[in-house]
Amino acid sequence: MLTLLSRGPAVRSQERKYRRVATASVFTRARVLDWAVMQTEPKPVAISRADPPKPFPARSPIDLPESRRYRLKSRLLGPPLPTDALEHERLGIPTALAVFSSDCISSSAYATEEILRVLFVAAGAAAFSLVVGVTIAMLVVLAFLILSYRETIREYPTAGGAYMVTRDNFGLLPAQVAGVSLLTDYVLTVAVSTAAGTAALVSAFPGLASYSVPITLGFIGVIVFMNLKGVRESGKAFAVPTYFFIAIMGLMLVMGLYKLAAGNLGVIPHADGMLKAKHQGRAIDGIFYGLGLGVMLHAFAVSGTAVTGVEAISNGVTAFRKPEWLNARKTLVIMGSVLATLFLGLSYMASHVHPVPYETGFPTVISQVGKQVFGTGGLGSVLFYALQAGTMLILVLAANTSFADFPRLASFHAGDNFMPKQLTKRGHRLVFSNGILFLAITAAVLVIATGAKIEVLISMYAIGVFASFTLSQSGMAKHHLRKKEPGWRKGIFINATGAVLSLVVLLIFIRFKFNQGAWVVILLVPIMVSVLVRLNKQYTAEAGQLEHEARAAATAPILPRHVVIVFIARLDQSAARAIQYARALMPDEMRAVHIAWDRSAAEQLAEEWRELGLSRVPLELVDCPDRRIARSALEVVAREVAGGKTEVSVLLPHRLYRRLWHRLLHDHTGDEIADAVSKLEHANVTMVPFQMGLLAATEAPPSA
Amino acid sequence: MLTLLSRGPAVRSQERKYRRVATASVFTRARVLDWAVMQTEPKPVAISRADPPKPFPARSPIDLPESRRYRLKSRLLGPPLPTDALEHERLGIPTALAVFSSDCISSSAYATEEILRVLFVAAGAAAFSLVVGVTIAMLVVLAFLILSYRETIREYPTAGGAYMVTRDNFGLLPAQVAGVSLLTDYVLTVAVSTAAGTAALVSAFPGLASYSVPITLGFIGVIVFMNLKGVRESGKAFAVPTYFFIAIMGLMLVMGLYKLAAGNLGVIPHADGMLKAKHQGRAIDGIFYGLGLGVMLHAFAVSGTAVTGVEAISNGVTAFRKPEWLNARKTLVIMGSVLATLFLGLSYMASHVHPVPYETGFPTVISQVGKQVFGTGGLGSVLFYALQAGTMLILVLAANTSFADFPRLASFHAGDNFMPKQLTKRGHRLVFSNGILFLAITAAVLVIATGAKIEVLISMYAIGVFASFTLSQSGMAKHHLRKKEPGWRKGIFINATGAVLSLVVLLIFIRFKFNQGAWVVILLVPIMVSVLVRLNKQYTAEAGQLEHEARAAATAPILPRHVVIVFIARLDQSAARAIQYARALMPDEMRAVHIAWDRSAAEQLAEEWRELGLSRVPLELVDCPDRRIARSALEVVAREVAGGKTEVSVLLPHRLYRRLWHRLLHDHTGDEIADAVSKLEHANVTMVPFQMGLLAATEAPPSA
Repeated sequence: MLTLLSRGPAVRSQERKYRRVATASVFTRARVLDWAVMQTEPKPVAISRADPPKPFPARSPIDLPESRRYRLKSRLLGPPLPTDALEHERLGIPTALAVFSSDCISSSAYATEEILRVLFVAAGAAAFSLVVGVTIAMLVVLAFLILSYRETIREYPTAGGAYMVTRDNFGLLPAQVAGVSLLTDYVLTVAVSTAAGTAALVSAFPGLASYSVPITLGFIGVIVFMNLKGVRESGKAFAVPTYFFIAIMGLMLVMGLYKLAAGNLGVIPHADGMLKAKHQGRAIDGIFYGLGLGVMLHAFAVSGTAVTGVEAISNGVTAFRKPEWLNARKTLVIMGSVLATLFLGLSYMASHVHPVPYETGFPTVISQVGKQVFGTGGLGSVLFYALQAGTMLILVLAANTSFADFPRLASFHAGDNFMPKQLTKRGHRLVFSNGILFLAITAAVLVIATGAKIEVLISMYAIGVFASFTLSQSGMAKHHLRKKEPGWRKGIFINATGAVLSLVVLLIFIRFKFNQGAWVVILLVPIMVSVLVRLNKQYTAEAGQLEHEARAAATAPILPRHVVIVFIARLDQSAARAIQYARALMPDEMRAVHIAWDRSAAEQLAEEWRELGLSRVPLELVDCPDRRIARSALEVVAREVAGGKTEVSVLLPHRLYRRLWHRLLHDHTGDEIADAVSKLEHANVTMVPFQMGLLAATEAPPSA
Repeated sequence: MLTLLSRGPAVRSQERKYRRVATASVFTRARVLDWAVMQTEPKPVAISRADPPKPFPARSPIDLPESRRYRLKSRLLGPPLPTDALEHERLGIPTALAVFSSDCISSSAYATEEILRVLFVAAGAAAFSLVVGVTIAMLVVLAFLILSYRETIREYPTAGGAYMVTRDNFGLLPAQVAGVSLLTDYVLTVAVSTAAGTAALVSAFPGLASYSVPITLGFIGVIVFMNLKGVRESGKAFAVPTYFFIAIMGLMLVMGLYKLAAGNLGVIPHADGMLKAKHQGRAIDGIFYGLGLGVMLHAFAVSGTAVTGVEAISNGVTAFRKPEWLNARKTLVIMGSVLATLFLGLSYMASHVHPVPYETGFPTVISQVGKQVFGTGGLGSVLFYALQAGTMLILVLAANTSFADFPRLASFHAGDNFMPKQLTKRGHRLVFSNGILFLAITAAVLVIATGAKIEVLISMYAIGVFASFTLSQSGMAKHHLRKKEPGWRKGIFINATGAVLSLVVLLIFIRFKFNQGAWVVILLVPIMVSVLVRLNKQYTAEAGQLEHEARAAATAPILPRHVVIVFIARLDQSAARAIQYARALMPDEMRAVHIAWDRSAAEQLAEEWRELGLSRVPLELVDCPDRRIARSALEVVAREVAGGKTEVSVLLPHRLYRRLWHRLLHDHTGDEIADAVSKLEHANVTMVPFQMGLLAATEAPPSA
């Protein structure tokens, strides 16, 4: 484990610590901590885990072999982490910026391209003179969102995600809408970001173009593996790609501006002269013969993809160094400024060098601008490849952020009984493994379905995030109205404006993207919310039923009669073992039952039984002409439990095979009986184990 | 059920009888037939099923709801048939011919075409002058096979299949080779016959050509359904297609001969003039410049597909009316004569009207001949469609024969412990359902893999059947040599010649078809035989282990101590129920164990326990920092059973949910504990059931 060079020293030392704890726990885990024998005077039950661990002798009875599954898991992911190891690193502003902003800042890598794509179709080359305007319009929205979230962070310094804010101000049901919206958005973030990362890679190496889908799935696979290993918010590791991307983008913009000022940054000479000519022609049409407001609004809505990820900091205020909320607000403003600079800068460059948004999705606009600015000389091409690498890395990191957020949000839903409880369960390495796997599979399906095309994915994107912005900012406005703390009027103005702007972007987006994929999300969110509500009803009903007089039931008197029934198919060692256990139970009455679907076999068994002279366990033969063994067994037991005065123990000889294929050689009549019988009240099915050995090669000749 | 018009009155009356028996059995099935309490003097155990059934009162305790699966099965397939209903119809010669000969006689529908295909490629139109010679050569082989099987039927009148004859004369291992060869052949019979049936349909309606694979799969589906319903050897239903085919083929041959004699049967004017010209040219090359012996041998081997199915009668001698073996021999000779007549007749016609074996597989040779003979006028086209329908029906019926033979042969293997025991199990309607499904799936895979092309399938066909002919006839030769009964010398001559001829056809077939698919079978047979031998070793070893002193074990003393451990996650009604059962067991010692993966929940549980003041059941908390609950439970139990002096009952509260999705909302920690713990000797896991109710709509508000 220590030889893995890709992890920083901090991670390694942490891991060493965990491993130490885990090793010690082998000895302490099953140690009996307290025996609270409550007879006349109840003794207190205490968990005395602070005791120093006492190692057991070497040949201790708990020296059991580990399961194959556990060994595989431990080899792949490392040793299990103890629950105590769950502690959050406290982040300073520079690290926090790296951790929380990758999703947000990485959007600048594709937002300009998507705006251009919309404008290009309608306006041709005139797109280049319109892109800056659209960008600035979205930056106004961004400014209000930043201001809005500054309010949220101050008011909800512990958990300020849309789910929590909506739940607090509007109740559980609207919170489900906000939550589901965000969850769909996280899935799309993974799909869009990894697809965009692949586009960055393909722009550098066009030969890889036909492998886009497998490469994208490979990115998802790597992120899943890292997340299951539990390498999550380990701050410094995140800093490298984020700052590297900011630096190389910054360099490109500065060089671009310098060359522009010096007058030696020309328009990209597109190989496809036809395309250029055609678009030039159409551009003239567009400008002179009236370019619709619709196109501008459409481009504006698409530019909304740039501001996804702004909410990330509000979810993680507790991870900041003290004073948490102040540091978080500062980081938020820095993040917004960086995004604004890069986004506007790239759009401005694009308006001068005229990169074409290709239908294939590559070379990307950012790569075309980069190539034009850096040139194709020795240093220039090094910088170009650095830009592509930086873009790819930050995009993959952005997808990784969803892998931290999605499982956490899903665990909130599950904690409120709106999603399956399994999502609250921390796995081998303390992460929400079920949530991680669910997110990965959903995103992978999307990638495969859309062929990893950003243009298609983007039509579904941003809806969820703007819906949650709207709900969370409205919630904040209501919060101000309710609390009326100092400065509440200003707060209401900011949050209400934020909510309205988010809603406007949302509506425009839906208007223009509905037919291209947005309908999927529009359809999915209400369906999912209704499913979640149904789940909640079920959980509540179950809890009610289970808690109903549980305490009274625990001390209820026992049934007056205990009968043991052993179902046996033939008289072999596994049956003998079951009979031995039946006798150990010392019930009021016991018998062996054979379901006689084959008359001659039944008669033979009866004969053996008679010869054996087995005392105390009589044999009953039950005729079964239709060969429905489980049904006959059910009827035998049902007769016994009828009346509700008898507790029946149903014993089934259970042979344990060492290998799966050995097990497959036998039918599962025992399991069928167990399934059928255990549906009866007071019918308690016991599998009496008998271990089958391994085959000795010399034991059995092939022919008799 | 009675409204199904497709079944004959005989079937319906039989079904009515079965249903009556099945209804009665609902009352008699679970009736306790005898209670053999064996204490000092063992009493005899008797099955007194002859008693008249006494119906239980209406609200009898066994009035349990049937499972959904059972209800579905009964609705689809009819009521379950009692084991007693297993009786064979005794068949007269006309019916027996219909039942057993469809596989054999239907081969005449494609054998001529496959001979022509081989000859055509090498010899062009000269093929038409060679086809009759090849046919006659194979008829010589057929004659010897018929004579050989006449011997077999006399010597093995109860079960004369290749498996039984080989087992009796050469032992179990060679019998596996014979059996596996036949099994592969049955699979191919299904694939070839249904594909040929589809070709007959497509020849009549060429528009269906692109649906060949689904149509073929549809045929298989219908046959499977009929067989699962148990409509098997219900004689008369089989007579219609078989005799219809014989009649229409006979009519065609007679009309053809008449027209030929009258001189008004011309060569088919092929639309594809190119093809004709080209083949004419090559034919001249072939004839004048030496046509290799190889091509003739190749065509001869392929013609062997015509005689597949000859063995069918020897498998079913017991189904004939008395004297069985004599009637069976007569039927065999009639079948051979009919096949010979139709096969030779079609080849002779083909040699005059020159049908082309198309690469697409349609229109078939038989349909081309039919069209030419019947003409295209009003009556002619009726007769043509009748021919196609007859061909299709007998081919589908031929596939159906495999569905009777394969499961029966597989059950022989399984009975000798060479195949999974599940294959000996008779299903809902007394048929070997597992064997039927296995055959159907394998054949369907073959059809899909080959695109339902007969040409490809035929390359794998006939190998298995000729291998089993060789083994079974050699076995018969050995039998004569051993017994030396009157006429043994003649018997040896016939059977040895039969064996040698079969072997020659087999070797030629392999030589010419190896690269085209035969290698699959050549590879598969030894692999399967070795798998079967491995299975046999495993079964023998298991039986040895299970029987080892089973009787002594059954009377062994019980362990001195009985401990009950109840694993509980929280204090609810399901846990309370488990505690109640624990107390009913009255063990030497009992306790509840909570695996504390969440400290605060554990402390809360301890608090509740204390408040409850639950007497006699102490609570133990076990620390579990790595959240491996099943592992911790395993260690707790392992400590208890260590030493081999304690019988431990491990109780797990088991909530039964009414619906699958309710169950999916909960994790399966209980099952995980059961799986882990039941691997320990003397650790007996009991699932204590608690029935969860249905959700009442008003019980749970969506938001709290």
